[in-house]
Amino acid sequence: MTIENLSANKSFGGWHKQYLHSSSVLNCPMRFAIYLPPQASSEHKVPVLYWLSGLTCTDENFMQKAGALRIAAKLGLAIVAPDTSPRGDEVPDDEAYDLGQGAGFYVNASEAPWDQNYRMFDYVNTELPAIIESTFPVTNQKSIAGHSMGGHGALVSALRHSSQYRSVSAFSPIAHPGDCPWGRKALSAYLGKDRGQWTQYDAVQLLCDQRDCLPALVDQGQDDEFLVEQLKIDVLESVVNNNGLPINIRRHAGYDHSYYFIASFIEDHLTFHAEHLGLL
Amino acid sequence: MTIENLSANKSFGGWHKQYLHSSSVLNCPMRFAIYLPPQASSEHKVPVLYWLSGLTCTDENFMQKAGALRIAAKLGLAIVAPDTSPRGDEVPDDEAYDLGQGAGFYVNASEAPWDQNYRMFDYVNTELPAIIESTFPVTNQKSIAGHSMGGHGALVSALRHSSQYRSVSAFSPIAHPGDCPWGRKALSAYLGKDRGQWTQYDAVQLLCDQRDCLPALVDQGQDDEFLVEQLKIDVLESVVNNNGLPINIRRHAGYDHSYYFIASFIEDHLTFHAEHLGLL
Repeated sequence: MTIENLSANKSFGGWHKQYLHSSSVLNCPMRFAIYLPPQASSEHKVPVLYWLSGLTCTDENFMQKAGALRIAAKLGLAIVAPDTSPRGDEVPDDEAYDLGQGAGFYVNASEAPWDQNYRMFDYVNTELPAIIESTFPVTNQKSIAGHSMGGHGALVSALRHSSQYRSVSAFSPIAHPGDCPWGRKALSAYLGKDRGQWTQYDAVQLLCDQRDCLPALVDQGQDDEFLVEQLKIDVLESVVNNNGLPINIRRHAGYDHSYYFIASFIEDHLTFHAEHLGLL
Repeated sequence: MTIENLSANKSFGGWHKQYLHSSSVLNCPMRFAIYLPPQASSEHKVPVLYWLSGLTCTDENFMQKAGALRIAAKLGLAIVAPDTSPRGDEVPDDEAYDLGQGAGFYVNASEAPWDQNYRMFDYVNTELPAIIESTFPVTNQKSIAGHSMGGHGALVSALRHSSQYRSVSAFSPIAHPGDCPWGRKALSAYLGKDRGQWTQYDAVQLLCDQRDCLPALVDQGQDDEFLVEQLKIDVLESVVNNNGLPINIRRHAGYDHSYYFIASFIEDHLTFHAEHLGLL
């Protein structure tokens, strides 16, 4: 397996780099970005935070807009940002922004035509970490975070691969995709009409019969235009409270769904993960 | 004069907002962005840093990518980011990225067809500050900064309106536009072939016979792809050293021309301006 370096930008003493590789899970070339803090070297491997972005995003949005690299450089934490779906002329797509390319929803699709490429759950949790850990000066200690569709992806990844991650966090996650318009559309396309298949990709459903989970932090803006219809943080909060789960849900008056919100609180998230990754 | 609020995002306790207004200097509608830190109120006015962006940019690049809002919120400093040229179907343009819309070069054009709209020097230094100071809870204390073409704009603005600003800073400025390909192309189009007219928009030329100027900070990446051919920092450095000018030029190994570089050192710039604006 070869990976091709596409770009390199020094930032805060470390390096932001983009790579292209051939994904055997997704059956297409995939781009990802990594930030290696100045502490990372072959003699000093660092832990990794995986960041999953939201609808329409690529590997670039978080790296450019979140203000996270400054904090990662200070903490000695690597960050990996995958793309949000398989891509390319050979990959099925849809004209809508919320299905197909840019909208993989971090599931393993079972339905045609999506099932040949749309296996982002395995890509993010299995194939990509193996590549990262065999290529870069990082340890196998990792945490996962994301925004919106990526917040959903991070929560579901952490709940289903709880031994793999140390902690999980989300901004404005699609917490209950089985019961919101974005989620119903995507899950019915990728997984079919049988809602029993959707449960494995629904954080609220996965948490319903749990009394414990990984340490988790969730931040939600109260003026988020998608809060009521799409994100269902109220339902997540009910399950968390009913089951006594270690998920800290914080609500922030006045903040919206944008990176202006994420940037405002990303330091708390990176610090939270650094604590669980043994950096603090 | 009415201005229309286009967007509002809470960030770091303050507000990032975009506005549209009719510019009488530029003869077209113009968009700008302002960040008002949490300290700003009708009872507590704050000073302003004007940020001028580079080729192809709008009001959005700096606000989204520089990581500056966190620092402005901490310091109690407002930031205003104008667009980089007049815009619209009625405004002359060129197919190239380095002339016309997105490439105003912060000059007052004298040549047709540019002279009806391309008066960014007066827009940035006169019309826009008057609007800002009559509309928002800010003082008339201001500093100016920018990147690349905007670094050129900031230096020239500060040198020619030295009583208006407290300090100036630039990342990777086009320091000597009269003697680089970008500058020669733009200045000959906007100002005509008479190079005597270019002097007033060339930081190196303006500094040649000065023995003092506003406090200035310039950061330059040593791996900037435009350093040798376009930016001419060596020439600026010679004039600064020969004339004993209070311009601190810093060079940074490994950094390029991108916002990954700007983000790495923007805290130094905002702190520098805050000191000269009496905030520290």
